[in-house]
Amino acid sequence: MADPTGDEELFRALCAGDRVALGKAITLVESTRRADRDRAVALVEQARSVQRTTLRIGITGIPGVGKSTLIDPIGREAIGHGHRVAVLATDPSSIRSGGSILGDKTRMDELSRSEHAFIRPTASRGNLGGVARRTQETILLCEAAGYDVILVETVGVGQSELEVDRMTDLNVLLTIPGTGDELQGIKRGVMESADVIVLTKADPKAATLYADARRSLLNAIAFLPARDSGKRPEVLLTEALSGDGIAALWAHIVSMSEGSHATGYFEKRRAQQNAQWLQHALRDGLLEELLTDPGIAAHLETLQASVRSGELGPFKAAAELIERFRTSGGRLP
Amino acid sequence: MADPTGDEELFRALCAGDRVALGKAITLVESTRRADRDRAVALVEQARSVQRTTLRIGITGIPGVGKSTLIDPIGREAIGHGHRVAVLATDPSSIRSGGSILGDKTRMDELSRSEHAFIRPTASRGNLGGVARRTQETILLCEAAGYDVILVETVGVGQSELEVDRMTDLNVLLTIPGTGDELQGIKRGVMESADVIVLTKADPKAATLYADARRSLLNAIAFLPARDSGKRPEVLLTEALSGDGIAALWAHIVSMSEGSHATGYFEKRRAQQNAQWLQHALRDGLLEELLTDPGIAAHLETLQASVRSGELGPFKAAAELIERFRTSGGRLP
Repeated sequence: MADPTGDEELFRALCAGDRVALGKAITLVESTRRADRDRAVALVEQARSVQRTTLRIGITGIPGVGKSTLIDPIGREAIGHGHRVAVLATDPSSIRSGGSILGDKTRMDELSRSEHAFIRPTASRGNLGGVARRTQETILLCEAAGYDVILVETVGVGQSELEVDRMTDLNVLLTIPGTGDELQGIKRGVMESADVIVLTKADPKAATLYADARRSLLNAIAFLPARDSGKRPEVLLTEALSGDGIAALWAHIVSMSEGSHATGYFEKRRAQQNAQWLQHALRDGLLEELLTDPGIAAHLETLQASVRSGELGPFKAAAELIERFRTSGGRLP
Repeated sequence: MADPTGDEELFRALCAGDRVALGKAITLVESTRRADRDRAVALVEQARSVQRTTLRIGITGIPGVGKSTLIDPIGREAIGHGHRVAVLATDPSSIRSGGSILGDKTRMDELSRSEHAFIRPTASRGNLGGVARRTQETILLCEAAGYDVILVETVGVGQSELEVDRMTDLNVLLTIPGTGDELQGIKRGVMESADVIVLTKADPKAATLYADARRSLLNAIAFLPARDSGKRPEVLLTEALSGDGIAALWAHIVSMSEGSHATGYFEKRRAQQNAQWLQHALRDGLLEELLTDPGIAAHLETLQASVRSGELGPFKAAAELIERFRTSGGRLP
């Protein structure tokens, strides 16, 4: 069970910027063990009490577009302006294969060597696995540990852009122009959750291509509804390896953030996100509670087998499990 | 509470093909009233016991691509081959606006006049609203009512393609060639859940454009992993208004279905889908159970207000609600 003294110590170390403590705290919050739950809740609530101005930035785009490659220099740029940077890679597990889509995470080489950066590459177990990664809770822990710029990287498949949009202050969508095939396209819903669109790998030798792509994106954006902030996304060009456009992108992000603070949109958005977060925490927490209930586990397996054999319908099996979960009421390990 | 005699009667009428009874049954299954839940579970389990060979087809693609326009002739083609066709329009509510993306559903004019077709246009409340539409349960009801071809239309935003992929036997992805802007693109994850891709509005005067688009799609498909069926999607051309390509598309769908029955993939996929369905029914059912718990409702509002004001963190509020839900154990209205 909980060791309140130990957790006090852990939280103190975390607030002092101890990376090992931060890593441990995140592991605790991601844990699905029932014994860890109350400790995790207490830790996150403590972290929340640390008031600090921070900026949470989503970095989205399809695999191969260069997210890690861009995060490296943009993180270093932020550090150059006196910030401390945490990078959370959400990598939703591929729904089809069940495996992680990304392999290595070594492309953030330079950033990972900075003492002002913290990189947490973790594959989520996805919603189908029953428990989503606790990204929002992890953001709070990183902020309590003194990281004031949080970059949440997300693989551009399925619902990840919409997921990250309910956790971050603004989103950067990465894309590549002129690949000429449909694979590189951006879906309407994805574009609508971008605050700034970045054309990556902007080769100076292909300046015309990039100018055309930018114009075509701006044309498309004009047909989209504005973001809730009232703004439509700007389209910027970067070349991560040479560093071209990185300073301008960071300046644009800072200016967007300042504008959003000035209008009060920043605070309003975070308040709305907290309300949504409650819904998600309830949904995920309930399922986790049921799946880890010792009185349910054996029964779950039996019902799963009946469902697989076709003997029992999934809807009825779920209703039975929920009923049993309710009436077993509150037994803790 | 339940009126078993009335529900027996409802089920008998439904099995006899009574559309009004089917509509009532779907409304019952979609109901979030606690008093309706047991009746809904019993009804779906009865529907499941009706064994019938059916084909569940997902129709996906971004808004404006012509899904309703294609469903009309393809539904009539299926009816011409002796089938009875149910159309379920999932229309996930727009996560940003909270409103329905599609307006009218009048484009299935001819199909809606057929006595062999049943069209159910309903907007889902989305996962953020707490309760997802019970599409899988509705499919079973339609099948029990004698509809052996089920077309599940889904708006091509966010996660809808992945959602429909866990409910249907095969998916048709609609797209338009040569629009030249990124809005019309297809994301990798979406393409990977397609069993056949249809270029709609294939104007004969733009034959070259369509041939190019088809070749470019086939090139792109070659780089994708094969579907679990072992197949890669074929690319077909249709022109819904003139009817060009509709018979060929239907023949292709039938041939895919026959192939998948022959290899045993059809049954295997349905069994896998039942296991996933259990997970989703659990997650959605638990949240619904909590949100409709009379002992929770008042407390939920208080906690929501505390979260909105920033006094309480969402993670802790969720944990408190779950704890209260557990210990209040099984009180029914």
